[in-house]
Amino acid sequence: MDDMRQVSLLTRYTAVRDRTQSLVAGLSAEDMLVQTMPDVSPTKWHLAHTTWFWETFLLRENLEGYQEFSPEFNYLFNSYYDGIGERHPRPERGFLSRPSLSEVMDYRAHTDAAMARLLAVDQDSKNARLEPLIQLGLAHEEQHQELMLTDIKHVLSRHPFAPAAYAGGDAGEAAPVGEPGWVGFDGGEVAIGIEAGGFHFDNEGPPHKTILTPYALADRLATNRDYGDFIADGGYTTPSLWLSDGWARVRSEGWSAPLYWRRSETRWEEFTLHGQQPVTPDAPVIHLSYYEASAFAEWSGARLPGEAEWEHAARKCRGADGRFAQAGISAHPSAASPPGSGPTRLRQMFGDAWEWTRSDYCAYPRYRPAAGAVGEYNGKFMSGQYVLRGGSCATAPGHVRASYRNFFPPEARWQFSGVRLARDI
Amino acid sequence: MDDMRQVSLLTRYTAVRDRTQSLVAGLSAEDMLVQTMPDVSPTKWHLAHTTWFWETFLLRENLEGYQEFSPEFNYLFNSYYDGIGERHPRPERGFLSRPSLSEVMDYRAHTDAAMARLLAVDQDSKNARLEPLIQLGLAHEEQHQELMLTDIKHVLSRHPFAPAAYAGGDAGEAAPVGEPGWVGFDGGEVAIGIEAGGFHFDNEGPPHKTILTPYALADRLATNRDYGDFIADGGYTTPSLWLSDGWARVRSEGWSAPLYWRRSETRWEEFTLHGQQPVTPDAPVIHLSYYEASAFAEWSGARLPGEAEWEHAARKCRGADGRFAQAGISAHPSAASPPGSGPTRLRQMFGDAWEWTRSDYCAYPRYRPAAGAVGEYNGKFMSGQYVLRGGSCATAPGHVRASYRNFFPPEARWQFSGVRLARDI
Amino acid sequence: MDDMRQVSLLTRYTAVRDRTQSLVAGLSAEDMLVQTMPDVSPTKWHLAHTTWFWETFLLRENLEGYQEFSPEFNYLFNSYYDGIGERHPRPERGFLSRPSLSEVMDYRAHTDAAMARLLAVDQDSKNARLEPLIQLGLAHEEQHQELMLTDIKHVLSRHPFAPAAYAGGDAGEAAPVGEPGWVGFDGGEVAIGIEAGGFHFDNEGPPHKTILTPYALADRLATNRDYGDFIADGGYTTPSLWLSDGWARVRSEGWSAPLYWRRSETRWEEFTLHGQQPVTPDAPVIHLSYYEASAFAEWSGARLPGEAEWEHAARKCRGADGRFAQAGISAHPSAASPPGSGPTRLRQMFGDAWEWTRSDYCAYPRYRPAAGAVGEYNGKFMSGQYVLRGGSCATAPGHVRASYRNFFPPEARWQFSGVRLARDI
Amino acid sequence: MDDMRQVSLLTRYTAVRDRTQSLVAGLSAEDMLVQTMPDVSPTKWHLAHTTWFWETFLLRENLEGYQEFSPEFNYLFNSYYDGIGERHPRPERGFLSRPSLSEVMDYRAHTDAAMARLLAVDQDSKNARLEPLIQLGLAHEEQHQELMLTDIKHVLSRHPFAPAAYAGGDAGEAAPVGEPGWVGFDGGEVAIGIEAGGFHFDNEGPPHKTILTPYALADRLATNRDYGDFIADGGYTTPSLWLSDGWARVRSEGWSAPLYWRRSETRWEEFTLHGQQPVTPDAPVIHLSYYEASAFAEWSGARLPGEAEWEHAARKCRGADGRFAQAGISAHPSAASPPGSGPTRLRQMFGDAWEWTRSDYCAYPRYRPAAGAVGEYNGKFMSGQYVLRGGSCATAPGHVRASYRNFFPPEARWQFSGVRLARDI
Repeated sequence: MDDMRQVSLLTRYTAVRDRTQSLVAGLSAEDMLVQTMPDVSPTKWHLAHTTWFWETFLLRENLEGYQEFSPEFNYLFNSYYDGIGERHPRPERGFLSRPSLSEVMDYRAHTDAAMARLLAVDQDSKNARLEPLIQLGLAHEEQHQELMLTDIKHVLSRHPFAPAAYAGGDAGEAAPVGEPGWVGFDGGEVAIGIEAGGFHFDNEGPPHKTILTPYALADRLATNRDYGDFIADGGYTTPSLWLSDGWARVRSEGWSAPLYWRRSETRWEEFTLHGQQPVTPDAPVIHLSYYEASAFAEWSGARLPGEAEWEHAARKCRGADGRFAQAGISAHPSAASPPGSGPTRLRQMFGDAWEWTRSDYCAYPRYRPAAGAVGEYNGKFMSGQYVLRGGSCATAPGHVRASYRNFFPPEARWQFSGVRLARDI
Repeated sequence: MDDMRQVSLLTRYTAVRDRTQSLVAGLSAEDMLVQTMPDVSPTKWHLAHTTWFWETFLLRENLEGYQEFSPEFNYLFNSYYDGIGERHPRPERGFLSRPSLSEVMDYRAHTDAAMARLLAVDQDSKNARLEPLIQLGLAHEEQHQELMLTDIKHVLSRHPFAPAAYAGGDAGEAAPVGEPGWVGFDGGEVAIGIEAGGFHFDNEGPPHKTILTPYALADRLATNRDYGDFIADGGYTTPSLWLSDGWARVRSEGWSAPLYWRRSETRWEEFTLHGQQPVTPDAPVIHLSYYEASAFAEWSGARLPGEAEWEHAARKCRGADGRFAQAGISAHPSAASPPGSGPTRLRQMFGDAWEWTRSDYCAYPRYRPAAGAVGEYNGKFMSGQYVLRGGSCATAPGHVRASYRNFFPPEARWQFSGVRLARDI
Repeated sequence: MDDMRQVSLLTRYTAVRDRTQSLVAGLSAEDMLVQTMPDVSPTKWHLAHTTWFWETFLLRENLEGYQEFSPEFNYLFNSYYDGIGERHPRPERGFLSRPSLSEVMDYRAHTDAAMARLLAVDQDSKNARLEPLIQLGLAHEEQHQELMLTDIKHVLSRHPFAPAAYAGGDAGEAAPVGEPGWVGFDGGEVAIGIEAGGFHFDNEGPPHKTILTPYALADRLATNRDYGDFIADGGYTTPSLWLSDGWARVRSEGWSAPLYWRRSETRWEEFTLHGQQPVTPDAPVIHLSYYEASAFAEWSGARLPGEAEWEHAARKCRGADGRFAQAGISAHPSAASPPGSGPTRLRQMFGDAWEWTRSDYCAYPRYRPAAGAVGEYNGKFMSGQYVLRGGSCATAPGHVRASYRNFFPPEARWQFSGVRLARDI
Repeated sequence: MDDMRQVSLLTRYTAVRDRTQSLVAGLSAEDMLVQTMPDVSPTKWHLAHTTWFWETFLLRENLEGYQEFSPEFNYLFNSYYDGIGERHPRPERGFLSRPSLSEVMDYRAHTDAAMARLLAVDQDSKNARLEPLIQLGLAHEEQHQELMLTDIKHVLSRHPFAPAAYAGGDAGEAAPVGEPGWVGFDGGEVAIGIEAGGFHFDNEGPPHKTILTPYALADRLATNRDYGDFIADGGYTTPSLWLSDGWARVRSEGWSAPLYWRRSETRWEEFTLHGQQPVTPDAPVIHLSYYEASAFAEWSGARLPGEAEWEHAARKCRGADGRFAQAGISAHPSAASPPGSGPTRLRQMFGDAWEWTRSDYCAYPRYRPAAGAVGEYNGKFMSGQYVLRGGSCATAPGHVRASYRNFFPPEARWQFSGVRLARDI
């Protein structure tokens, strides 16, 4: 292990931390305080919580002489770690006018300075030991970068005048994507989970074998046009298409379109981080719940993929990626590129929209969470949620991989979640 | 009507508007955005709504060439006037990060400039006609000044570290107030409602006669010591003291002390606008619901006064006033001054704490609300609420009078509401 | 005090108790168990609770050697008397399959036999003392007779096929009642409350004076035709007609007609105790909330009467009564008889429909509830409710009087509640 | 196919239908009407719904000249089949005092007579085609037999005096069962799903292969003693043992023991179908949610089995069964028999308590539900539920098999659900 790697860790740390702040450049302290539902956290809270993570899991125990910024922050900015102690109730994060945004920014600077000392080049041997935790912290901060986008989108969507978070975002004219092609897989006994090299979350392993029967995946994400056909054909009024829990939700919540769609007199519009816009027919449909994805698949004569099917295909056949959350912020999906061929035919497997799988979020065989509070990161959420794969237009570039497992409850709609069809062959 | 009165109207307008802004001097834009329950409005919303009131009821129709500041504000800052049109849902006022505080302050300045034109001296004849509406606007803004204090108190109380809104507030040592004296009244046929001269709300009239049987009022407000005795004697665990609805509320909400009281290991403390403080035994108890006031009166072998009893007494026997919300902001009640004698023996009839009466908030005989949207000011709330009298330590000096009727639902506790005992004689 | 009076007390007791049972003749044990909302009690529970009342307030302390029927019943059938002890939660009365109806009937027989011993002729001196309590028990049982009708009506209305509780009920053709006349009163200082002689509840007194300004009352109840005009004119979609709380309720509950009205393709129908029937235009409208009564009055250019106005008028000008709950059970209102003249012009002041007044249910001057548990009968409900006057088609004949005060929360619609208009003159 | 098989189908039909009625012998019409929560159906509703199933899926289309008993019953007794039409809301099943129990019994007799005609010996060829549907009807009725027990247990448990549904049930003294032994399995590629021969539900197939890593199962169910140790060791107050959703539920519902356990002064007691009884330490613990089963396993240093692990073991190593719901009704689990040895060492794999697995209830590869309304039987519930295996003391003897999949939401506690530990080896 040489100095270069240490330099590189600090560089990487700085890049990730800077990216977090670049995402909030156009928002005011007031924007960053609002919480529109318990699932949503204020942007300011994300800025502080990611900082608390570094302080709690790295600095407190590993940087000699580290002075915590404020003893109160351990209560305010702990998200869900029972092992760390009591914490502020999630639905009341929007009550935290104090600390002010400016104090939170000071907290970030204080912590960044300490992290720079921790990651200094003369800390070689120590940091070799810490590297997994540092990698986790970086991935954690990238996850919250995406949550900041999903959450501020919800916040602005509930404002009566639906302001844009970011300039730009004009989807422009796209060549029609046409009908999806189907890419078939023989299945059989396949390898699933962590591949050698690089960081991964504990829930991506242990690597193991599973058995798949022959199946095919659509070579692109379902589009707004596809989904509009489902709506026009009575998708939201036909109970036989729906899971029982999904149909109950349709009725109790009055669902009749994806979360951010609104019908104007002449067309469907949707709220985006770039403001209110007409729905682009060829772009991927997003902000679907699992229930909607499942009903759409049923209506299409298809089904949702299993997560092992998806992962096996992603390893074999990755083609052109979709859009990630790029510098300058374009956080809205775009139409698929033209179809590929040969072994790289699966477009948009990564980026654009998280893809609901029909797999519940569960432990892989012989999975054990890490000891201590950091073990609460993933394991305790393994009930009542479904796995999504592939990342979205709100995901940091480079963040996801074939084994990456995202998870949300089946009724969640405020994530950038879409659907790729699968079928048995 | 001469120029002097016009000058005086503008002067008065300016003073009231300035006072509003002086109340928020120590608060940040973030503090002013938080909404902790549907009953609470963000401070920023109050700043804008009071401005909207001037724009809507005065400027729009009466100032030629008036340019509204923003057409959207009519939707955002209408409180409850169905006659004006659709409006933003009350529980979502805390979602309004936009307009920013700074834009709201611009809105205030824009409106103040227009009002200065409206109230200019050459507008004599017009303003004679408008004066009642202007007086209403001033009273309205003063009411919201008090609501700003009650609401920001709730907001800060829900912050885990209970910060102070204002410096000062040390109650210091007070001479013990001793047992209350009782001041008796013969009753009989008495006059109630508006007295000649000066502004009043429509709900204070028409003036009329009512019949009172002989009664007595305590010569001071109930104190924290009195109320602490009630608690220590099992007040919150003895159903026979409570109205049926009150007892149900005690159990469903888990009430065991006034809203802002917290038991430390050694003593009762209470949250105030000046931060967390020990409860001062001789100061008036505040933040009681009607149900608590009623149970306390029952325990005391007394009852709550009727609003006519209170008003008749206030006209006859006003003694030393309590505290109002003074410049420099001291918004917490203080112990009663020493007992008076003769016809001015009733201390604290005005100021310190609103006094719950046992009178429901109803229309006086032959009451009719004004025509148009302004008629929604008071009349449509005449169900399910009880009358409070006398003003509080959060009320603007000079705002209340003997005929003034405040009203809140019986479960409300976030107002500066206390209790004065009454009994039959 | 001679034997005759004692005989008469027992005779009266027997008649009231028999009447209770005659009301349930057509119902099965299953019908008598259902509870469709917390406000509704199962018929079987009423049968047992009225019996428990005699056992608890009369027999236990006054009949030597009385053996209680079952020690468990004190827990099951106490309605709301905290002074008696813990009790079964009201919303779970429908869970009480045991005791069976047959056991409850045995309980009634056991108690009736004991009451016959208590009321035997040789108990003279004791019963003179007990008479007020016995009168209270009789009035209590008659109140529950009405509640049994209101509650079983709700129970059957929630059955998908809306079965009839009783045969009969065909309203037949009625002569059109025409526009209401108005009967004026000078007001001034008038006497209110208990008149000499006969039983009364404590809340009807003490007798006292109040002052009324000149007013008029409609000489009949508002009819279904009147109310249909209100609906057709947009009554349920015009916020300016409504109290603020009422309008909130219209929207949250989706009210668009009286509780039991349903629109068929061609006409309004209503559920009655005699089954589903077309709405009779000339019969009084019933099953209105206070909010609906108030909005209808506003739309009519009138207002609701105050309870003192009503009582004063009832003493002066009682004309033809409406319908009470007669033998053979006809529990639906009928059209008013032709207008009277002279001092008896006020038709339907008694019977047909309880009349909402705009008076909140409060204590009269110097009112004190009785000592002990029986004091919980009325006093603890004196908040959040409005007074209704005059009795209804579900009230026992002879039960009401001019000073009688019924009371329900303003949102209650399942009582036989209607409206008589009033106005200032 | 000969006459014998037909006779046998009718015999089987009659036996199942008779068993249903034998289960309600000790209950009154009132007991059979109560609904204590939306999940619970009244016994009478089960009696009618099972009958409706025969009428709807067999008689209506297959018995010439069949006269339906009542056209209204199709609305009242359809459980959840959207393909059949509108239906009565589930939470209001307890409102159905009509039809009476006696009419429902007539409905059963009417339907049984028609089924006897359908299953007569001269219907050979037709019934060969119908046999799968008849088998489904029989299994369906047996499932409702178990639900009748779980539901009436809940109903009686909510009665304040906790009456017994059935006599008997004294667990008596049992030999201590001792610590569980562990039975290991190599795993590898194993066969899962329907075995040849006999009836099965569609969700048990298609048969397929899956891969298991080496694991062990406890050779008996967890006992009340085991679970009592978990409680005594702070199981319900230690968040690190719980899934996140489970811990939230512990706090929101106040869970501190299994559903029917109550702490007396000296011991744990539990409500059973045989009344209130002391908890038997050696009997299996029942009425656990998935969350509680999972936390208990974590505390035990083990985990829940996967459903494939369970099924593979059940095929290999079935030992002594536990208790099923026997004639004369004993519906409470009993202590395990002494340990076995060799290939039949797994005690209580069947009977006593349903065993929570950590497998979500999902479609097996290539699963497709049947066409038509009957396809709604299982498939539409494949979200948000977990699989339980093995049957319980409330299950009909002969009802379950190794491939049988029961399923309930993770918070459900009113089923006879327990836990068998598993671990990796």
